[in-house]
Amino acid sequence: MAKVSDELLEMLGEISDLGRARELLAWDEHTKMPPRGAAARAEQIATLTRLRHRRLASDELGRLLDAAEATLEGARPDSFAASLVRVSKRDWEKARRVPAELRAEIARTTALAEHTWEAARAESDFGAFLPSLERVIELKRRYLECFEFDHPYDPLLDDFEPEMKTAELGPLLARVRDGVGELLAEIAAAGTELDASPLFGSFPPGEQEALAQDVAARLPLEPDSWRLDSTVHPFATGIAISDLRITTRFDPGYVGTALWSVIHEVGHAMYNNGIDPELARTPLCRSTSMGFDESQSRLWENWVGRGRPFLGHLLPLLAERFPERFAGLEAEELYRAANRVGASPIRVEADEVTYNLHIVLRFELELALFEERIAPRELPEAWRERTREYLGIEVADDAAGVLQDVHWAAGLYGYFPTYCLGNMIAAQVWEGARAELADLDDQLARGELAPLRDHLRERIYRHGAKLAPTELIEAVTGGPLDPGPLIAGLRRKYGELYELG
Amino acid sequence: MAKVSDELLEMLGEISDLGRARELLAWDEHTKMPPRGAAARAEQIATLTRLRHRRLASDELGRLLDAAEATLEGARPDSFAASLVRVSKRDWEKARRVPAELRAEIARTTALAEHTWEAARAESDFGAFLPSLERVIELKRRYLECFEFDHPYDPLLDDFEPEMKTAELGPLLARVRDGVGELLAEIAAAGTELDASPLFGSFPPGEQEALAQDVAARLPLEPDSWRLDSTVHPFATGIAISDLRITTRFDPGYVGTALWSVIHEVGHAMYNNGIDPELARTPLCRSTSMGFDESQSRLWENWVGRGRPFLGHLLPLLAERFPERFAGLEAEELYRAANRVGASPIRVEADEVTYNLHIVLRFELELALFEERIAPRELPEAWRERTREYLGIEVADDAAGVLQDVHWAAGLYGYFPTYCLGNMIAAQVWEGARAELADLDDQLARGELAPLRDHLRERIYRHGAKLAPTELIEAVTGGPLDPGPLIAGLRRKYGELYELG
Repeated sequence: MAKVSDELLEMLGEISDLGRARELLAWDEHTKMPPRGAAARAEQIATLTRLRHRRLASDELGRLLDAAEATLEGARPDSFAASLVRVSKRDWEKARRVPAELRAEIARTTALAEHTWEAARAESDFGAFLPSLERVIELKRRYLECFEFDHPYDPLLDDFEPEMKTAELGPLLARVRDGVGELLAEIAAAGTELDASPLFGSFPPGEQEALAQDVAARLPLEPDSWRLDSTVHPFATGIAISDLRITTRFDPGYVGTALWSVIHEVGHAMYNNGIDPELARTPLCRSTSMGFDESQSRLWENWVGRGRPFLGHLLPLLAERFPERFAGLEAEELYRAANRVGASPIRVEADEVTYNLHIVLRFELELALFEERIAPRELPEAWRERTREYLGIEVADDAAGVLQDVHWAAGLYGYFPTYCLGNMIAAQVWEGARAELADLDDQLARGELAPLRDHLRERIYRHGAKLAPTELIEAVTGGPLDPGPLIAGLRRKYGELYELG
Repeated sequence: MAKVSDELLEMLGEISDLGRARELLAWDEHTKMPPRGAAARAEQIATLTRLRHRRLASDELGRLLDAAEATLEGARPDSFAASLVRVSKRDWEKARRVPAELRAEIARTTALAEHTWEAARAESDFGAFLPSLERVIELKRRYLECFEFDHPYDPLLDDFEPEMKTAELGPLLARVRDGVGELLAEIAAAGTELDASPLFGSFPPGEQEALAQDVAARLPLEPDSWRLDSTVHPFATGIAISDLRITTRFDPGYVGTALWSVIHEVGHAMYNNGIDPELARTPLCRSTSMGFDESQSRLWENWVGRGRPFLGHLLPLLAERFPERFAGLEAEELYRAANRVGASPIRVEADEVTYNLHIVLRFELELALFEERIAPRELPEAWRERTREYLGIEVADDAAGVLQDVHWAAGLYGYFPTYCLGNMIAAQVWEGARAELADLDDQLARGELAPLRDHLRERIYRHGAKLAPTELIEAVTGGPLDPGPLIAGLRRKYGELYELG
C-alpha cells in the first residue's frame, strides 16, 4: 500500500513554504518595497533560495523519497503518492546537480540585475545593463554545465517546460513562424486596416486602475483570495492557492496595456486558484509546465478577452470609466480595435498574430547566446536586425528593443518559448471547450465565466503537476502538442476580420 | 586579536535574513494579504520561525561562537567582535532552551489567533476569542517553563527588556502609577477643561491618509527607505535598515489616531533607520530593548509630536487637508486640544498622562495570569474593574475593553510594560537633548528635525544592540533608569496647561 510519511510531507512542506516566502519577497520587491531596500532584499532572497535548495538537494530528502518509492508498487501513476514521489524525485535529482552556492549567487545577482535593468531601460542605456547581463549569462552557463545535455539550451528549457528538448521545440516554433508569416503577408496584401484608435488617447492611471480592478473582479477567481497591484513589468504569483498576486502597469496613452495584461495575469492566477487544495505545500501544487501556465493566461487574454462575446460584456465597463472614448462605440468597433494586426516593437503590446514572432526572435537569440554564436554586447544590433526581418519595423531605441523585457535580467532563459507553446496549447484547449460548452459564446457575452473556469479546472487546473505536460495535453485534447489549431484559429479569426479570400 | 569568522557572520546573516523575511510575511499579512491567505501564511511563518530557531539553537552556532570568544581577550566590550559574540551567545543560550517545535507552534497559533482576534473585536465577542487566547497562554506557559526564574513573568519580560526582572519592574511601575494618580487627582480638582473638539468631527479616510503621508514625509527618515500603509492595529517593522514599514489606521471621527500613531511608528522606524549599517545582518542590528524602542516612538509622538513648537509647524498641514476644522485655529488651541487629559477606554487614544495607567492595568493582569491568580475567561470582568478603579470609567463593551489590543493574541506577554519604560526613558533622554540642543524649540517650530535625529542617532540608534539597556541608559543620561523625569515632566507640562498650583 502506497504510503507517504509525515516526515516526507513535512520536509516537502518546508521546501514549499520557503519557496512561497521567496515569492512574496519578490512580489513585494516589485510592487511595494522602498527603493533603498534592494540590496538587503537580494541577500534575503539569496538566503531563502540557498536554504530551500539545501533541503531540496539533501541526502535526507533522498532517503525519504526512496522509502516512499518502495511502497508504490501497484499504485496508480496518477495517484497522489506516486505523483508526489515522481515529481519530488525529479526535483531532487535536478537540485542535486547544482551547488547551493551557485543557486544563491544566481538569485542574488538576478535580484540586483533586475534593478539595474529597470534603471537602464528607463534611460534606454544598454551599456549600463551590459555588465549585469554578462554576469547573469555567465552564471546561467555555469548552471547548465551542471547537467548532461544534447543541446546547451536543453537544461534551461527543462526548467520551464519539463522534458521538452530544443530539437523538438525548434521545429514547432518554425511551423508557427512560417504559418504566422504567411498570414501576415496575406493581411498586408489585403490592404484592409482596422481602426484601433478607440484604445488610444488619454487615460488617467487612476481611472485605469479602477477599470483594472473592475475587470479583475468580473473574472471568476475565488473572492478574497487575490489582489491587484501595479508594477513595472506585469506578472502573477501565487503565495498560496488562495493568496494570489496579480500585477499590471498603466500606459496613460493606451488602455489596452492595463486591460489585457490584467486578464492575462488573472489567467495565470486562475490556474493556481484551481489546484486541488489537497496538493497544497507539496511540489504538485504548481502548473505542470510554463507552457501550460501560459496557455491559461493566453487563453483568458486572447480567446476570452479579445473575443467578440466578452468584449461586448466589457464595453459598458470601458464606457463607464472613459465615456469620451467608449460611450456610443459599437461592440463590433471595439472587437476590431482590440484585434488590429500591426507590427509593434513591444511584445506585451503586440497583437495575437505578430506576438508569436516576438517569441521566435527571442528564442533564436537565446539559442545563439548559448550556442555562443553571439556575445551579449551584440544583442542590441541582432535584435534590431531580426525585428526588421520578422516585423518589418525599426527599433527606435534599446528601451523599445533589447531592454524591453525583464526576463534576461531575471535569468529566465528558456522561458520565452513557453509563451508560444502556451498559444499552441490554448488553441487546442479552446477547441475542446467550444465543443463541450455548447452555450459558451452566450455565457461569455453575459459575463458568465464560471462554466468555462469549471471546465478548465476539471481538466487542467486541479491536477497541478500530477500529470506531465505530454500526459496532460494528451488527456485534455486526445493528442499531442500541435501548432495546427493555433495557426488554423488565427487564420479563421483574422481571415474574417481582414476579409481574406 | 579579536576575530569573527566568515562562517559565523554567514550563519548569523542567514538567521537575520530568515527573521526579516518573517517580518515581511507578517507585515504583508496585516496590510496586503487577501483574507483567504491566512491559513497558508500561518504555515509559512511557522516554517521560517522553525528554521530560524533551529539555526539559532544549533550546535554549529555554539561552536562558531566559542571559537570567536576565544579570540576576544583584550577586545573592548563595546567593540564589534565582543558585542557580537556576547549578544549572539545570549540569543543562542535562550534559544537552546526552547524546542523548535514549540517556537513554531507559537508562531502558527498566534498568526491564526490574530485573525480570530480581529473578527472577535469587530463583533465585540470575547467568547469567540477565548479558545484562541487560552491556547496562546497555554503555549506561553510551556515557553516560560523552558527557563529558570525567580518569577514566572521574568522569562516573558526578558524577551522584550533583556535582563530586567519583575521584582525591579513592579516598583518602577508603581511609582509611575502613584505619581500619575496624584497628578490626575490635582487635574480633576482644578476643574479646568481643555477643548479637544477641533480634533473630532468628520475626517474622510482618503484625506487622512494624505495627511499621514505628509506628516511622515516631514519626519527625518532617510528618503526612499520607508512606506506607510493602513492596518487594523498600527505597528512598525524593519525589513532592513533602509526598508522600513510604518502602518496606521484612520478613525473617521477623530484625526488624532492617524496623526499621532504615524509619528509614534515613525519613531520606531527612526531607531532602525539610524543603526550603523556595519551591524546589518547581525543580531546587533536591532534596538537594545523594547523599552528603548518605545522610548523613541514615545519621544517622537509626545515630546515632539504633542509639543508646542512642532504642533505649530503641523497646523498648516492640518489646515490644508481639513480647512473647516483647522483654518483659523490658533496654534495654542491646537496645543491644548492635543493635550487634553481625560480618561478614555482605549489605550492608543489615551492622553500622555492616563496612558501610563492603561499600561499598569495590563501589566497587573498579565502578572495575575502568569501567577495563575486569574483565568483567561475572567479577564473581561477584571479589565472592567480595573478600568473603573484607575480611570474611573465604565467599559462599554469588550471591543473597547479586553479585546482592544492585539498583543495577547500575538503572544506578546511582557511587552506592555515596555511602553511605560519607554515613557520613562523618553523623559530622561529628552532632558539630555534639551540641554545639549540649545536651539531645539526653534528647530522644531521650523520643522527642522534632523538635528534632534542626529543627536539621538549618535547617542542611541547607531549602537543597535551593542550596549545593554542598563549600559545605554547610563551612557546617555549618566544614571540609571529613573521614573523621576517622566513624573516631573508631566507635572511641569500639565501643571501649566491646567494651571495647577
